[in-house]
Formats: sequence, C-alpha cells, structure tokens
Amino acid sequence: MNFTIRAATKVDCKDISRMIMELALFEKMTDQVKISSEELERDGFCPNPLFECLVAEVPKENKSKEGFTTVGYGLYFYTYSTWKGRSMYLEDLYVMPEFRGFGIGKGLLSTVAKVAKEKHCARLQLSVLDWNAPSRDFYATRGAQDLTVKEGWHLIRFDGQSLDDLGNDAQKK
Amino acid sequence: MNFTIRAATKVDCKDISRMIMELALFEKMTDQVKISSEELERDGFCPNPLFECLVAEVPKENKSKEGFTTVGYGLYFYTYSTWKGRSMYLEDLYVMPEFRGFGIGKGLLSTVAKVAKEKHCARLQLSVLDWNAPSRDFYATRGAQDLTVKEGWHLIRFDGQSLDDLGNDAQKK
Repeated sequence: MNFTIRAATKVDCKDISRMIMELALFEKMTDQVKISSEELERDGFCPNPLFECLVAEVPKENKSKEGFTTVGYGLYFYTYSTWKGRSMYLEDLYVMPEFRGFGIGKGLLSTVAKVAKEKHCARLQLSVLDWNAPSRDFYATRGAQDLTVKEGWHLIRFDGQSLDDLGNDAQKK
Repeated sequence: MNFTIRAATKVDCKDISRMIMELALFEKMTDQVKISSEELERDGFCPNPLFECLVAEVPKENKSKEGFTTVGYGLYFYTYSTWKGRSMYLEDLYVMPEFRGFGIGKGLLSTVAKVAKEKHCARLQLSVLDWNAPSRDFYATRGAQDLTVKEGWHLIRFDGQSLDDLGNDAQKK
C-alpha cells in the first residue's frame, strides 16, 4: 500500500486527537485522556510549539472502514540530556490496526529519527508498556536499548494532589 | 544550615557542569558524560533555552571542603503529554553528599514543582535507578507514583549507530 509521511498542520488535529484516543484505548488508559483537538492546535501550531508531529496518509481508495485517510502519527518534542545535550522524545507512535504491516510505523519512526539527526539530537527516547511485546520487539529489532532492563531506570510521576502538595511546600517558605 | 534556591545564570554553568559529573559518578556512568560548561551556557541561556535550572547555595562560612558554595541543582525542561498537555521533566536533582539532610533536595524539588504549577504543567516526571533506594524513597514519600512498577512503562533509547541507521532508512526513500 502506498503511503505518504508529512509534517502535520493545524487541520490534522482532529485526526491526531482521534488517534490519540485510539492509542489510549489500546493501552487501556482512556480515562487518562484529557486533551482536546483545540488544545493540540494551540500547543503544537504556534511560534514556540510544545511538540511537533508527523502524520501518515493513504490514498482515498485505501481509506479506512470509517472513511479516514490519515492513518498514523508520530508526535515528538525536544528534551535535554545533561550527559549528551539536545535530545528528542517520541511521545506517541501509532498506526491504525487495519494499516499495520505495510511499513507505515517504520516509515514514521525513521522519519522522526531523520529529524532528530537534522536537529543534532544525540538520542531518541520513548516509553513502551511491558506487556506490549509487538512494540518492544519493533524497537529492539531496530537496535533500541531497553534502559529499564539494561540499566534499571524507573519512570516516576508527580501529578494531581502530589504535585499540588509539592508546589505548596515551596510557597510556604 | 541556611540555604538559598534561585534560578541559575550563565556564570553557574561551571558549578552545574561539575555537579553533573559528580551525579554521573554516583550513578556509575561517567563514561556517558559528553557535555561541557560552554554547551550548557549555549543551550540553557539563550532566547529559547533547551532547559531551565535552579541552584542551591550555602553561605560562605558553610562552603564545601573544596571551597564550593553552590552545592545542589535541579535541571528541568518542558515536555508534552498527548493525554494531559504541557508537562515538565526533571532531568537531574542533585545535592552534594556533605550537604544532604538539611532539606536542600526537598527545597529544590518543591521549587521545581512550584514552577511546574505556575507554568500550568499537569505532570512532573523524572527517572531514577532501581538500586538507588534513597532516591526512590525520597520521591515515594512525597507522593510520586513509580510508573514502571505500577503500569509497566519501560524507557527505550536509540542513539549512536542505531539512531544513524534509523535516520538513514528514511533518507533512502
């Protein structure tokens, strides 16, 4: 199947928003999704965007059952390593189930890596769930290191009440 | 012991660079450190900085054995969650060993959290090594969730040859 990978524009936000929800459904965490298409437009398509995004498109004759031609996305942003400098983090990589097996995921990932190289990023990092064996294999096959297995890194999060409490602690001083 | 927490300026980069190496030594990964004080100056103190940094200072009479008064730092940057929007990532939090136990680490962390709240970040995330029990306890005590334990997230990295190979794949198309 032919497909095209291109930088997302504002008008893609509805499709991206739809696929964010599809990915969260697969990850069994839809209750955590609070983002809207309008927020994506505001945050990603402004002078200093908070993220960048690629989308994958198929020709109209190959549209999905529901009529979609935008069938995958890769959303990333720039981070910083105090060991290596400018780096990149791939927040989401997603291809709709009926469009898997055609190289679209690989195309999105390699295009993200190309951007990372062009922007002089020393690293491209991402997170994957331990039960998501197909994704873990997908990245491992392409030479990625699992830093949680290899070096023992754990991901830690403050949010909601724990973040409020921490911030209030500072204000009391 | 009295201490002050303030935003880092360009002249702090030598101290930050020194402490980055001290932290890497503790983490047993000094071979991975490639960043220089000059690169920190360039990347963090420009119109669109790649990171922000807080430093902790003690009075001259409490200076370290080697004569340092800048004894801790917290380096962070802004990220993006496709579920929650603008977020923050704390890349490094460090206090020199002889200055631990005075609340400096807690002061740095809560000040980072305060900035996160002010900038409307829904989350503050970071990574910690599994054998670093004091740090894991430090965050857990303050209400952080260990997402690797709780949800099974693994951190994945492409760099060096694997990143080059990926990027070259895209260019061949």
